[in-house]
Amino acid sequence: MFSEMDTPAVLVDLDIAEANIARFQEHCDAHGLKLRPHIKTHKLPMLAKRQIEAGAVGITCQKISEAEAMISEGGIDDVLITYNIVGSQKLSRLRALAQKVRLSVVADNTTTISGLSATFAQAATPLCVLVECDTGGKRCGVTTPLAAAKLATEINEMAGIKFGGLMTYPPVGQEAAVQAWLSEAKALIEAKGIAVPVISNGGSPGMWQAHDVPMATEYRIGTYVYNDRSLQERGVCTWDDCALSVLVTVISVPTNDRAVFDAGTKVLTSDLLGLDGHGHVLGCPDIKVAGLSEEHGILTAEVINLKVGDRLRIIPNHVCVVSNMVDEVQLIRGDTALGAHPVVARGKVC
Amino acid sequence: MFSEMDTPAVLVDLDIAEANIARFQEHCDAHGLKLRPHIKTHKLPMLAKRQIEAGAVGITCQKISEAEAMISEGGIDDVLITYNIVGSQKLSRLRALAQKVRLSVVADNTTTISGLSATFAQAATPLCVLVECDTGGKRCGVTTPLAAAKLATEINEMAGIKFGGLMTYPPVGQEAAVQAWLSEAKALIEAKGIAVPVISNGGSPGMWQAHDVPMATEYRIGTYVYNDRSLQERGVCTWDDCALSVLVTVISVPTNDRAVFDAGTKVLTSDLLGLDGHGHVLGCPDIKVAGLSEEHGILTAEVINLKVGDRLRIIPNHVCVVSNMVDEVQLIRGDTALGAHPVVARGKVC
Repeated sequence: MFSEMDTPAVLVDLDIAEANIARFQEHCDAHGLKLRPHIKTHKLPMLAKRQIEAGAVGITCQKISEAEAMISEGGIDDVLITYNIVGSQKLSRLRALAQKVRLSVVADNTTTISGLSATFAQAATPLCVLVECDTGGKRCGVTTPLAAAKLATEINEMAGIKFGGLMTYPPVGQEAAVQAWLSEAKALIEAKGIAVPVISNGGSPGMWQAHDVPMATEYRIGTYVYNDRSLQERGVCTWDDCALSVLVTVISVPTNDRAVFDAGTKVLTSDLLGLDGHGHVLGCPDIKVAGLSEEHGILTAEVINLKVGDRLRIIPNHVCVVSNMVDEVQLIRGDTALGAHPVVARGKVC
Repeated sequence: MFSEMDTPAVLVDLDIAEANIARFQEHCDAHGLKLRPHIKTHKLPMLAKRQIEAGAVGITCQKISEAEAMISEGGIDDVLITYNIVGSQKLSRLRALAQKVRLSVVADNTTTISGLSATFAQAATPLCVLVECDTGGKRCGVTTPLAAAKLATEINEMAGIKFGGLMTYPPVGQEAAVQAWLSEAKALIEAKGIAVPVISNGGSPGMWQAHDVPMATEYRIGTYVYNDRSLQERGVCTWDDCALSVLVTVISVPTNDRAVFDAGTKVLTSDLLGLDGHGHVLGCPDIKVAGLSEEHGILTAEVINLKVGDRLRIIPNHVCVVSNMVDEVQLIRGDTALGAHPVVARGKVC
């Protein structure tokens, strides 16, 4: 299996990725939702461009350095950074970025919007700022619709920035509650005479229920481009929809119920996402990825039936962190290897 | 705090790292143990050279690509790769590496040593191969002393390779059992008229008990150079001995018992190593790193008492995987920033 490749290798099947892109774009089109893919999963400008070509309105990034990397090759001109941008270094880079693309950010506090305002006060065009709303995810976000309305008003009263709408990373399976939260916030803001042009919702686990928050105007989603074991276990995709796998080699079979392969947490990571085990061995449902150390993976089965030198493909628990571990992925289409491709935005955490 | 640095930044305090290197070198010297540091923790040729200068006999690597990266700058001429090397691509690279440094590898099976033998059959010098022994760690390794003796004999009967001794990654706190296992294997091998020049033991959790396996001739150890929360919790080091920390910025304080900072699993990783929480906030023992998503860290406390823009330093649970997440670390000495330094062997998994 891809015998010319050294292992471990992170394989990306473009046929599957393109089908994943097309399928969810169709779903969004059918429900009148704009799609704004999150590039954190693939970190490849090449795939971001395909998402745009398929109909996406722009991309989502978490960090400025991701956005800088994604626009380095051109073809991407609309970026939402779903992050409170804080600190003079980042604000300077944000200002530079805004001169290259149509840019929006989010904020959930006055300190952040004050920094944005000071940075963009002299800009030709005000920076578009969405209010991040905590609709139950308990990460960032204002915690009440009233606080959302207050921050929206503050944004519109400051120089250099303008209120762009509401954004949330919602709790899974709580569509009705999310709709209610956002509706209340929107009504409060509109009652102040402020328009709410964008309602940005997101998340791969709830992707096929995206339309159950009908007031959302756009949907942000990352994992769907590759899919992974966490989404398969939730019933969101099948193994055949998983575009990314890790090609590994068995390097030791110490006992008849245990084998060891040549990838560990430095490729597959320790992400469990609530699952038992560290991945799915394609074609071997009876084998468990029972443990990982940094460079070793442990397989167990009643009878392991593997030999040193065997090659396997593993679907990771969480694909977004795996593509970030390697400097390059190996592109494939089915059984055809297309060559290595740099993960341009890998490690861009600032 | 290092206000000129963008965050998140991985800081390495050279004063502390050098003290850690010196202290364990003294321990090994006092007990007649050779020290062979594992470079997986720092992945920096610069620090490997300091370990050699302090008295280490050579370095340990897990992967060939790590070794290639470590010798790229010179000054390192003795490398043990503690891995079964399998596959034609890797064997070719191993042969090239052996022409540049004094090289040893380990093996636990006949397929591996057959590949090594075929590769080195025409070499001027035979490749030194240690037998990896599973003394209770249940990863790689032959599982009985008798199997170790059998593999040692096979190695010495093959062209191009020679038996170099025994290697184990031991279970923690089982020094007497490890000593007994290795003693039995050594006696069986010597009874066949084969010398056992090296007994290589290792592991940071048991570092201060290294001498309790008195038959070991050398000790391999990685984490000790930086230390981390897992070793502090085990009583192996103090917070003052932790050389690596992650500088982060608070970007959101949604409630009075929760704050969010700008690093997640893409810097700190999901490694728990059995611990509760995802790191230790230096100087803030009442604050818990309660959760991580990819680019966000969640802090909780009864009263969080932080504001947006505050900077914190976090000691990771597991330092070896954190330095591997970033393309460069920021070197410091106390409060003095020395500049960025590339993590040369980052992502070298083949």
